[in-house]
Amino acid sequence: MESPITFVEDELLRKVPSWRDYLSAKLGFRNHWYPVKLSREIGEAQIAQMTLCGEKILIKRVDGKLFALRDQCLHRGVPFSQKLECYTKTTITCWYHGFTYKWESGELCDILASPDSKAIGRRGVKSYPVEEAKGVVFVFLGDDDFDVPPLAEDVPPMFLDEDMALEGDSYVVESNWRVGCENGFDGLHVYIHRTSPLVNDTQRSLPIGHTAESGKIELREAPGEPKGVYDSFAHHHSLWEGRVEGDVVVKGVRNSRADGAPSRTTAASLWMPGVLRVDDFPDAGRHQFEWYVPIDENTHYYLIMIGKRVSSPEEALAHEQEFWSRWKPVSLDGFNNQDVEARLALQSFYKRDRAWLEEMLIEGDYPIIAWRELAHRHNRGVQCPEHLG
Amino acid sequence: MESPITFVEDELLRKVPSWRDYLSAKLGFRNHWYPVKLSREIGEAQIAQMTLCGEKILIKRVDGKLFALRDQCLHRGVPFSQKLECYTKTTITCWYHGFTYKWESGELCDILASPDSKAIGRRGVKSYPVEEAKGVVFVFLGDDDFDVPPLAEDVPPMFLDEDMALEGDSYVVESNWRVGCENGFDGLHVYIHRTSPLVNDTQRSLPIGHTAESGKIELREAPGEPKGVYDSFAHHHSLWEGRVEGDVVVKGVRNSRADGAPSRTTAASLWMPGVLRVDDFPDAGRHQFEWYVPIDENTHYYLIMIGKRVSSPEEALAHEQEFWSRWKPVSLDGFNNQDVEARLALQSFYKRDRAWLEEMLIEGDYPIIAWRELAHRHNRGVQCPEHLG
Amino acid sequence: MESPITFVEDELLRKVPSWRDYLSAKLGFRNHWYPVKLSREIGEAQIAQMTLCGEKILIKRVDGKLFALRDQCLHRGVPFSQKLECYTKTTITCWYHGFTYKWESGELCDILASPDSKAIGRRGVKSYPVEEAKGVVFVFLGDDDFDVPPLAEDVPPMFLDEDMALEGDSYVVESNWRVGCENGFDGLHVYIHRTSPLVNDTQRSLPIGHTAESGKIELREAPGEPKGVYDSFAHHHSLWEGRVEGDVVVKGVRNSRADGAPSRTTAASLWMPGVLRVDDFPDAGRHQFEWYVPIDENTHYYLIMIGKRVSSPEEALAHEQEFWSRWKPVSLDGFNNQDVEARLALQSFYKRDRAWLEEMLIEGDYPIIAWRELAHRHNRGVQCPEHLG
Repeated sequence: MESPITFVEDELLRKVPSWRDYLSAKLGFRNHWYPVKLSREIGEAQIAQMTLCGEKILIKRVDGKLFALRDQCLHRGVPFSQKLECYTKTTITCWYHGFTYKWESGELCDILASPDSKAIGRRGVKSYPVEEAKGVVFVFLGDDDFDVPPLAEDVPPMFLDEDMALEGDSYVVESNWRVGCENGFDGLHVYIHRTSPLVNDTQRSLPIGHTAESGKIELREAPGEPKGVYDSFAHHHSLWEGRVEGDVVVKGVRNSRADGAPSRTTAASLWMPGVLRVDDFPDAGRHQFEWYVPIDENTHYYLIMIGKRVSSPEEALAHEQEFWSRWKPVSLDGFNNQDVEARLALQSFYKRDRAWLEEMLIEGDYPIIAWRELAHRHNRGVQCPEHLG
Repeated sequence: MESPITFVEDELLRKVPSWRDYLSAKLGFRNHWYPVKLSREIGEAQIAQMTLCGEKILIKRVDGKLFALRDQCLHRGVPFSQKLECYTKTTITCWYHGFTYKWESGELCDILASPDSKAIGRRGVKSYPVEEAKGVVFVFLGDDDFDVPPLAEDVPPMFLDEDMALEGDSYVVESNWRVGCENGFDGLHVYIHRTSPLVNDTQRSLPIGHTAESGKIELREAPGEPKGVYDSFAHHHSLWEGRVEGDVVVKGVRNSRADGAPSRTTAASLWMPGVLRVDDFPDAGRHQFEWYVPIDENTHYYLIMIGKRVSSPEEALAHEQEFWSRWKPVSLDGFNNQDVEARLALQSFYKRDRAWLEEMLIEGDYPIIAWRELAHRHNRGVQCPEHLG
Repeated sequence: MESPITFVEDELLRKVPSWRDYLSAKLGFRNHWYPVKLSREIGEAQIAQMTLCGEKILIKRVDGKLFALRDQCLHRGVPFSQKLECYTKTTITCWYHGFTYKWESGELCDILASPDSKAIGRRGVKSYPVEEAKGVVFVFLGDDDFDVPPLAEDVPPMFLDEDMALEGDSYVVESNWRVGCENGFDGLHVYIHRTSPLVNDTQRSLPIGHTAESGKIELREAPGEPKGVYDSFAHHHSLWEGRVEGDVVVKGVRNSRADGAPSRTTAASLWMPGVLRVDDFPDAGRHQFEWYVPIDENTHYYLIMIGKRVSSPEEALAHEQEFWSRWKPVSLDGFNNQDVEARLALQSFYKRDRAWLEEMLIEGDYPIIAWRELAHRHNRGVQCPEHLG
């Protein structure tokens, strides 16, 4: 038998009252929108499988629109995906006894082997709201009676802007999603990137570390808007030399570019339900969006989108070409892979719930604490074992 | 460390008072006869290993007769099977310190390295009653002081009949044994077999589904006889067309054979401690017997025997030849393999104890409930962790 | 997630009051010296990794001297060993944020990315006392405030003697360390060695079994000295023939050597924290030392050293040559490998805590009980889950 997902002990939760829900959210938060695929990955009539916050989900595209259902027959719990049977465009039939459900609503509309059953028309498999935006497929992982908020509340500001052209790719990383969030937002961890090919490629400057001045990070908590922690690097103290016992052992990289463009990242911000925005990264005028989406307790879906404001289809096309020829190899595969390695190392520690109380954060880590507290205040529910089934 | 076998929580058991023991019997029932090997698999002087309801067992054939012992030395718990040592025909010696036991009784009769120990003659390893019938080796998995019932009470009627010739083969399936029983007895699941090569090979008719009329299944509970649920298909309503939203999407197969033989299976019955009999299957005049024997929580030994009444050695030989040339490829490997796939899918759900309360059975599933309740009433004990050691 | 280390239930511990701590010490005892490597395995400036009683440790040799630190950064718990960074000879820097520690003390002396943090100089990673003796690296696995005893209290008598030349090699064995101790000290288990190439090679005598006379083993418990159980074979009753039902089925080997040397092992003794000494083994005038060092619950580091008293460098060299040309293949790889197989078999039983209460020890096993009780009385602490982190 698989080892069960054990939830966090009350004894530990009581020790962090200001971010209790965050410690509890091993499997993520409920009643939020999460990206699960890129639009390009689900063609017409295709069915895609995924796991989100521990729930197995199927998505089908029908006449261009996407529909999502729980991948588990009501009758005896088998996964539809073991052997997909779709006799009509708008239904899915369980391979085992012919239980047939509507993609649009999840309603049990027929049972091939038992057409007279009273269950028909009265029961349904869980269906999930789906939206597509900017080439990304979002699923709302929520309670049936929850009033679904607009997608705009669950993505970082700018992401949905009309002139923002976005290209991206995704990875699966073997760490908890919170470890992904914290590594990405961590102002001190630039230390690991000093050897990245991105630094030379973009002639960027990269300090050994930079620390937010206390009190200078901004909390974004306005009703009806995305909730996040915004950290402008303008208020940062940058460090260009690393010393051991007084001797310089590591130097940061200082470039002044010919084109005069700001050669530094200007801000990082982390938004509910777990998505980072980095401004002027991987280069001036770009915005990198990174989602850390819970698959299960030990795995997250890592979606990276790079955005650039464009004013014509030609500019959008140029951005697309640049993404694949430059940013994909140099930034995603060459810079963010260093973050992936760091998350694997973090996971070896943070997989134990108690580790969250054993860590020794320092002054420069306070934006991370601000994030944990904001997530505690603004989540719409914690995913729990009883939601999995 | 291996993950421990966790037993079913009382909270769940209390919710199914009419089939509590069945929910509890993850590892099977105690004090029943189970088939563990085919006779042909244990030649004279050979020793066979198996696991039954979590207990590791050795069986040896001595002068034609079979004897079974627990595969674990009393002294320090090592398995005899790590390095089999039999200095005499009737004893087994532990390779580690020379503890020697009699195959017939399990009695500790010698310790090679400590011939004066007081334990000699006073202690013994567990021995199990063994019987052979119809080419099958049965072991009684029971308490030492239990009054062993005749094998005839633990096999389906007809199996031991003198004129019943039987041939078979076995598989190991990665699902709980109860999932095997329920898939086999399930009247609705013929839906998955419509693509089986057996349908053409035998020119059989196979509906999309068939449903027992309420109240028409028979409970066999007479004292001293096999206990089972008998479901005659004469009382079934058969369905030949499967519809989705009014349109026919799947059709059953209707054949009328040249030889006028009944081209349909006529009945299915499920017997304690977990064995199915299907009448007129895989063809008219045959009876298929299927045992789902607990190996451990997640695995069962799947023994299929096909029987035919014969009146001469020639007819018995013809049945044997037909088994290997026809039924083994077409029925066991071509039809029952579809059941094996279904059981693997069921196991992904039913491995969680709570799933047994989350399933959504429908009208046609009532024979399965009747089986669970009969198994609750007539089992002779539930196998528990304390029996494993 | 890894399955957690579950500690022993109080219900079981209460049943063995005289050796409770021993049953509890799945992960070994704290505040003892353990061998972890051979000196030859850590050259100047090299860093070695190991796990001792569940704690991950790094050892570096600096100017000939060894220093040991916990392999886990204080900040966010990542292992230094994921990417070793040593900017100076005497420090180690965490690859993630540049936290830098002194090898000598574990003191946090610099943070490259945050040179002004108040944590600098005030915190430290755990450092472990290290000693080298006889070509073996010992680590003291203990509490920070524990008064470290001399190494001489945690090794068998003779081991540190000046004229004792020692050569050895190590293995990793997939069993709990206690299973290693008990198999090695077990007087009855010579039964398994009757087929070993060592018997012929050394023309030794080897009985089927030998049993200590009751009351003749010696407990060594003097303050300030090694604590152990000493079992002189002079008091043993040897058995040369093994019988089953009266007939001799196995014979021991009796050799009388041409050189008149005692052809028998003369004593075995087992010492805290889990190290065996066998006298006149593998041959007259040699002493075999065997450590069973806890790596984790299911694994131990098996270090075998063979000692011989020498009076000149030439004799020491001859001993070294004999170790590699004769004892390594014939004794370590040819005799002790039989013990390793036995331990793997024992582990299949003793991995369950309850097994320690289900075993059926006999008269000849009383030295093992004496050992368990001595270990209970003289351990300096039990390693527990809260020490792991």
